[in-house]
Amino acid sequence: MNHPNVAAAAGPAALERLFYPQSIALVGASERSPWSQLLHANIQRVGYAGRIYAVNKTGAAAHGYPGYRACREIPEAVDAAYLFVPLEAVLDAFDDVVESGIQSAVILTSGFAEAGPEGAALQAELTQRARAAGVTVLGPNCLGYANLAIRAAMTPIPIHPPFLPGKVALVGQSGATSIEIVDMAQDSNIGLSMCIATGNEAMLDVAACVDFLVDDDNTQVIMVFAETLRDTATFAAAARRAAVKKKAIVMLKAGATELTAQVAAAHTGALVGNDAVFDAACRQLGVLRVHTLENLVVTAGLLAHTGPLRAPGVGIVSISGGACTLIADRAEAHGVSLPALSPATRARLREAVPGPGEALNPFDITGLAVRDPALFERVLTALGDDPAIGFVGCVYSMPWNEKWQQVPAIEVIGRALAQLGKPSAMLNQTLRPVSQKSRDIMAACGVPAAFGGLEAVVGALGHISRWSAWLQAQTSVDQPLPVLPADTRPDSERATLDYLASRGVPVIPARLARTRGEAVDFAASLGAPVAMKIASPDIAHKTEVGGVRLDLQGDTAVGAAFDAMLAGVRQARPDARIDGVLVSPMRSGGLEILVGTVRDPQWGLTLAVGLGGVWVEALADTQLHVLPVSPQEAKAMLGRLRAAKLLQGFRGSPPVDLDRLARVIAAIGDAALALGGSLAALEVNPLWVRGDEVEALDALAVWADAP
Amino acid sequence: MNHPNVAAAAGPAALERLFYPQSIALVGASERSPWSQLLHANIQRVGYAGRIYAVNKTGAAAHGYPGYRACREIPEAVDAAYLFVPLEAVLDAFDDVVESGIQSAVILTSGFAEAGPEGAALQAELTQRARAAGVTVLGPNCLGYANLAIRAAMTPIPIHPPFLPGKVALVGQSGATSIEIVDMAQDSNIGLSMCIATGNEAMLDVAACVDFLVDDDNTQVIMVFAETLRDTATFAAAARRAAVKKKAIVMLKAGATELTAQVAAAHTGALVGNDAVFDAACRQLGVLRVHTLENLVVTAGLLAHTGPLRAPGVGIVSISGGACTLIADRAEAHGVSLPALSPATRARLREAVPGPGEALNPFDITGLAVRDPALFERVLTALGDDPAIGFVGCVYSMPWNEKWQQVPAIEVIGRALAQLGKPSAMLNQTLRPVSQKSRDIMAACGVPAAFGGLEAVVGALGHISRWSAWLQAQTSVDQPLPVLPADTRPDSERATLDYLASRGVPVIPARLARTRGEAVDFAASLGAPVAMKIASPDIAHKTEVGGVRLDLQGDTAVGAAFDAMLAGVRQARPDARIDGVLVSPMRSGGLEILVGTVRDPQWGLTLAVGLGGVWVEALADTQLHVLPVSPQEAKAMLGRLRAAKLLQGFRGSPPVDLDRLARVIAAIGDAALALGGSLAALEVNPLWVRGDEVEALDALAVWADAP
Repeated sequence: MNHPNVAAAAGPAALERLFYPQSIALVGASERSPWSQLLHANIQRVGYAGRIYAVNKTGAAAHGYPGYRACREIPEAVDAAYLFVPLEAVLDAFDDVVESGIQSAVILTSGFAEAGPEGAALQAELTQRARAAGVTVLGPNCLGYANLAIRAAMTPIPIHPPFLPGKVALVGQSGATSIEIVDMAQDSNIGLSMCIATGNEAMLDVAACVDFLVDDDNTQVIMVFAETLRDTATFAAAARRAAVKKKAIVMLKAGATELTAQVAAAHTGALVGNDAVFDAACRQLGVLRVHTLENLVVTAGLLAHTGPLRAPGVGIVSISGGACTLIADRAEAHGVSLPALSPATRARLREAVPGPGEALNPFDITGLAVRDPALFERVLTALGDDPAIGFVGCVYSMPWNEKWQQVPAIEVIGRALAQLGKPSAMLNQTLRPVSQKSRDIMAACGVPAAFGGLEAVVGALGHISRWSAWLQAQTSVDQPLPVLPADTRPDSERATLDYLASRGVPVIPARLARTRGEAVDFAASLGAPVAMKIASPDIAHKTEVGGVRLDLQGDTAVGAAFDAMLAGVRQARPDARIDGVLVSPMRSGGLEILVGTVRDPQWGLTLAVGLGGVWVEALADTQLHVLPVSPQEAKAMLGRLRAAKLLQGFRGSPPVDLDRLARVIAAIGDAALALGGSLAALEVNPLWVRGDEVEALDALAVWADAP
Repeated sequence: MNHPNVAAAAGPAALERLFYPQSIALVGASERSPWSQLLHANIQRVGYAGRIYAVNKTGAAAHGYPGYRACREIPEAVDAAYLFVPLEAVLDAFDDVVESGIQSAVILTSGFAEAGPEGAALQAELTQRARAAGVTVLGPNCLGYANLAIRAAMTPIPIHPPFLPGKVALVGQSGATSIEIVDMAQDSNIGLSMCIATGNEAMLDVAACVDFLVDDDNTQVIMVFAETLRDTATFAAAARRAAVKKKAIVMLKAGATELTAQVAAAHTGALVGNDAVFDAACRQLGVLRVHTLENLVVTAGLLAHTGPLRAPGVGIVSISGGACTLIADRAEAHGVSLPALSPATRARLREAVPGPGEALNPFDITGLAVRDPALFERVLTALGDDPAIGFVGCVYSMPWNEKWQQVPAIEVIGRALAQLGKPSAMLNQTLRPVSQKSRDIMAACGVPAAFGGLEAVVGALGHISRWSAWLQAQTSVDQPLPVLPADTRPDSERATLDYLASRGVPVIPARLARTRGEAVDFAASLGAPVAMKIASPDIAHKTEVGGVRLDLQGDTAVGAAFDAMLAGVRQARPDARIDGVLVSPMRSGGLEILVGTVRDPQWGLTLAVGLGGVWVEALADTQLHVLPVSPQEAKAMLGRLRAAKLLQGFRGSPPVDLDRLARVIAAIGDAALALGGSLAALEVNPLWVRGDEVEALDALAVWADAP
């Protein structure tokens, strides 16, 4: 997390002026300019109430806005300037903005970093001037933003009614995809607060906008579509503040494949970063990561409607047995809890709808409810009264076009849902619009909300329920990162193990034998088979030079191994300084764990845990966590390993003391962090574990500036 | 595959009359009956051209159809009867159908097996009468069907214009969910041939309907929504015939979880079956299994449009860099090949759209194409000319409601796509309707098709491309199942290994020692460490009674082990017949494979392959195949194991001869099949493999009728 905090640099006041302007200057305004026409059309349609000035070469009025030849001629210092002049005129126009005292600018003009080296140079010059002048810039090459709360649609993208204001904001790196997201949200009756397209992100990036929206009173859920996250530190801090405010961030970030990285680099010039580390960071920060546009919109919309769930369980009623089966199936795939209902609830359901067998959840209300819609009220109320249920969904089609008629059942369902006292919604089986016709029916029947289709909703419920639980588990979400002085710099296996021991990590006892006699004596004192390893600050890979011998027992064997090892290593590496031979007891049985920390270029030191040997190498079965990691978090990582079962006492071996192992893993993470910014990697491999015994058998530190 | 073939029993002629009727009797018709009204409204709206008769107690005409008191009074033998009389009148009405000579009936009335034991008894009686009379029944408790090719909408579900006829059929077990699927297809501009709701499936089940549709000339792609598959044999045969005709089956089958099984049992009274075996069967049969309603519809619709792809590669153009990144990301998740373009193609793309770096696929046409839509034609044509590309998609929003305006680019795109000479479509980023407005624009601009959103389309393209390759690889899809006489019945480890050896499976050499002297001599003749196992037809689990000793070397050790084993086993199991002790050489190094066959109640003998030990037990890392399995198929199974990397020569061990191993696995499968229907399970565990050495070390046969 090593990027400048742009948002902090810009300051909340500047962003407030940018996104909540009371007056604006349209630089490039002219009745013949298509961009000017588009902006004006939006401003008029959506109904901006602020003061607007037209700026152009001749100072002519445009679209009825008073005209000026420069921003500095405008009789007030306006809140924000919108630049859409031709590329070659941008720098001069920007200098005028600076001179006029305007502190925020949106630059729509393209031809900058996205267009090649020349444009990148121009962008660098622009950014430099903006920083020097303290002007906050959105763009360039961006499609602007729309603030639906104050009806400011400052974008060339045509915005059409209905302008559904709401609690969901969007920050998008891709303008064209942002339009699609906004359209889908509005077609799904999901109201929006603010939509920001960040474009080239010369100054304001996704993280800075998220940071602003966390404090935006009109925003409760923040959707993000991004290919790259330039400023992970600001993003992480914003996510932590969002959690405190119970605001959610739902994120669609591409970047899982090599091709994606190439495509994204061509598109935005930015690195997509390591996807597995990003996944880990999202999990840690409570950021809900989705992988499709539909899941982005439906998850955000449903979450804005429900807020955090008080109970994780979901209760479902449907007239379609097929929908019940489908939901049961997909709930497992998405980690949604469909709890068994209480005996009282089951009795009430069966009283309302007789049938063979126990009342299940999802509950099939059957065709009886077609003839007797009142059954919906009895069934929904019974489900809503069950304490295990935190959300009630009624699968029933919401009419949306001329083909559909209102049906009496919707009135009953609407009345019942509205009285449940907990979040609820009507659910469509397939994804389809929730139109003006739908809104009319919903208003008439009191239906609180309608979402669909089942797949997107079940996926969303999985996210919402995990997020709600995560939110409750946060005791202090704003934990500061420990920044400790780099007082030590271990440069050999023994030094690294000693350092770990000093930080509370149990390490295997070992003694440095400088002579054959010392080696034999040490081995004898252990009274067990020993391992011997060459000790040299110059040799990282001991096995390759014959510097490791295992399972030695008896004076003769130990002595001979000492002599042979020294001779062999000296021949293989005549230049290496040799301190002697480390003698330690052999460990057998149990399991070998790999605990590695490596510095991710975007997120910083990241810890990986996996079972050693073929498990890591053949299955890539590891779990990641951006440091620091707490013992609880380390234990959760162990539980997420595919090979987790092996830790529970597999095939007669004793179950591993997971709490103890997790504490040691957390201590290794802290030890790595304490080594400071020059540490490139610290690896304990293996960390040996048998029952409640945990010991680091080997360790290696790698330094970024090492030769 | 052990269910009666209902479709074959019913005969294609009866089904033809049922689904393509030239005359029908509406039994229960009355202008006051809501069901009658609904049926009549559909018939009128959609425009059925056949002859219609009303049958009711009084013989009154209804809706203008001539009235009769019974079917037998109708002056012609009509093709099909639709029964929607009250439950208590169904049997009498059905008897009348039988007497009248009508050979096909749709029974809409509910209250049968879905309602409890009493209804189930009534259904059994009805089915028995139908079978006796040779009448084919769809239902009961079903919502009928609609044949859009002949405009016969014989269902109480309101069907509304537009009635888009097309090549996609639907067979659905759940009426309510079938309606949603039909609605989504029509809202997505996906034309339908036939939609059948099977209801309680007293006679005609999903498999029988699929079987019929494989021969339906109006149908090219068959969508199935099912919770259970009652008749796997008919389904498998139909799927094989579909492949020969290059027709595809796209299947959404719920059933992955225990809750689903409960819910489905409550809904249809049928077992969902083992989901992993169903997955394997789909893969073998070329059935495209999807998991969401959206994927069902979009996959079927896109496939009906493209047919099998001649090249597996997909080429994508978009004006949205975000869409390019998203597609690249999801393509990997769904196994879609986005091949690198040829140098010639890349040159043409860069000539059309200059930009930094090489032209990639997906290709970002950038905002340049807004100002100059002609670029679309150049870019799409270049992509279409690339021999690696089998499908071209152009991501561009298709207007669908009043908010949208037609834009000049669509005309260019339509013209370009229509001339490519290979399958192509316009793609929406999000799932949204393709409306009448869309159709008008498409017709005016020549756009061949439009689908969306990206996630559903990329998922569909993955299925279509895999299916196309599978189709090409089928040399003889109609392979007969080998049915061999059960001439042998091995009942001990040795007998099973001997049987396997007789079927071409290499097994470890072993000799039966009856005395200590024989054991010592045999071991000495092997000149290597030996394994010794008790030989008894009465002992299946040898380890538990001390009947296994490993790694024995030298006369004394072998002799002592012989005596100790015999004594120990006799004490533990005084009743067991003991043939002696098997002596065989120890095998070390290499890998242990588990090859098990077990009889699935729905699909029959199914073979499982996995790496032995913790791999199978902790990771459940196995692959399944319904027998028979060919060596090529067995090799593909090995490749799909998560632990596949271990077979390729992991950590210095020699790479496994996969062809040889696959031949042995196939031989084990054939050996299991040859043992006939009483075999419950045949397991080789371990099958030892090192390089090109493969040997069954232990084997066990379990018989269904064993005590």
